[in-house]
Amino acid sequence: MAVVEVSISPLGMPGTGVSEFVAESLKVIRSSGLKHQLTPMGTIIEGSLDDILPVIRKMHEAQFEAGAPRVSTLIKIDDRRDKPSSLEDKVRSVEEKIHGQIP
Amino acid sequence: MAVVEVSISPLGMPGTGVSEFVAESLKVIRSSGLKHQLTPMGTIIEGSLDDILPVIRKMHEAQFEAGAPRVSTLIKIDDRRDKPSSLEDKVRSVEEKIHGQIP
Amino acid sequence: MAVVEVSISPLGMPGTGVSEFVAESLKVIRSSGLKHQLTPMGTIIEGSLDDILPVIRKMHEAQFEAGAPRVSTLIKIDDRRDKPSSLEDKVRSVEEKIHGQIP
Amino acid sequence: MAVVEVSISPLGMPGTGVSEFVAESLKVIRSSGLKHQLTPMGTIIEGSLDDILPVIRKMHEAQFEAGAPRVSTLIKIDDRRDKPSSLEDKVRSVEEKIHGQIP
Repeated sequence: MAVVEVSISPLGMPGTGVSEFVAESLKVIRSSGLKHQLTPMGTIIEGSLDDILPVIRKMHEAQFEAGAPRVSTLIKIDDRRDKPSSLEDKVRSVEEKIHGQIP
Repeated sequence: MAVVEVSISPLGMPGTGVSEFVAESLKVIRSSGLKHQLTPMGTIIEGSLDDILPVIRKMHEAQFEAGAPRVSTLIKIDDRRDKPSSLEDKVRSVEEKIHGQIP
Repeated sequence: MAVVEVSISPLGMPGTGVSEFVAESLKVIRSSGLKHQLTPMGTIIEGSLDDILPVIRKMHEAQFEAGAPRVSTLIKIDDRRDKPSSLEDKVRSVEEKIHGQIP
Repeated sequence: MAVVEVSISPLGMPGTGVSEFVAESLKVIRSSGLKHQLTPMGTIIEGSLDDILPVIRKMHEAQFEAGAPRVSTLIKIDDRRDKPSSLEDKVRSVEEKIHGQIP
């Protein structure tokens, strides 16, 4: 199981707002069935890379389909094979360390 | 006002868990008074760059102080000067587009 | 045509050096036939996304095969469909602007 | 000594080319005296963080001064305190592993 963050934005569009394009990418992940979380800086997805990477590819294409001539995409993969990992686990294990609990 | 995402992790420590180190960085931002949000992949901070960058520098140093011999830090800055931006605005404007509302 | 930068590193290995693992990933791209450039911070690849993404997936797997229990991968895609782009073009067009030439 | 990669681009400008803005940022690093390398995807800088971070801040501001209403900046820091590191060392140590030499 991997946790992957992706942020996708169009270049070369007049106007500073890009949320219309980001929304097109988000529709793709929302219809994928994959567990995910929208943050102010991107979308974080949990699952196997084999499931996630093709969806990210479609999220990237969605902005060209919406009219962008150039798209910039940043993908950060945290892939661990030693034990299961989830969106909640990653936040919880940091919070526990802060509060001095033994994980 | 800028929105900045940062993720900091130690290299060269045995053991795959890094949450102890991430917690040290998080303590720095928690005591800074800056508005922020912990996500499964990093910390997102809202404020002026003049306030945020020195805090990120301290978050980075915190992992050396905790014993890491090498630290890898990724910083993503979204800085707009045309209108105010906030953690909530960025998520809301995407959600509105998805639900077909005029922003 | 896209230009893609990738950097892949193992987590959870004792010792601060990661070049042995990076070399395993580099072998994959070297045998792929894709045009690429090794930099101090990653590998930059030129080609179509359909060719590049499967190779990056293998570069990522190569570090697990070399023994890493956890792998962290950062991928940055610059994909433009309005005109061709290449590793050389991207550097040249910046250099030309600096030297005051009309591109 | 740290090795830092930075890529800075304007958002909200009509036209897909951003090299004019990238050139403004590059002028800042060129006049800084810091050792650096321009790549197709960014600029890689070698030095102490105390020297590098203020220069990156100026590189970021340069694009606002050139007229961008919104600027997106990605900074990746590789900071090791266990032994010296340089742009050349990082490439060489990977190349040596590939060619089977003992580093």
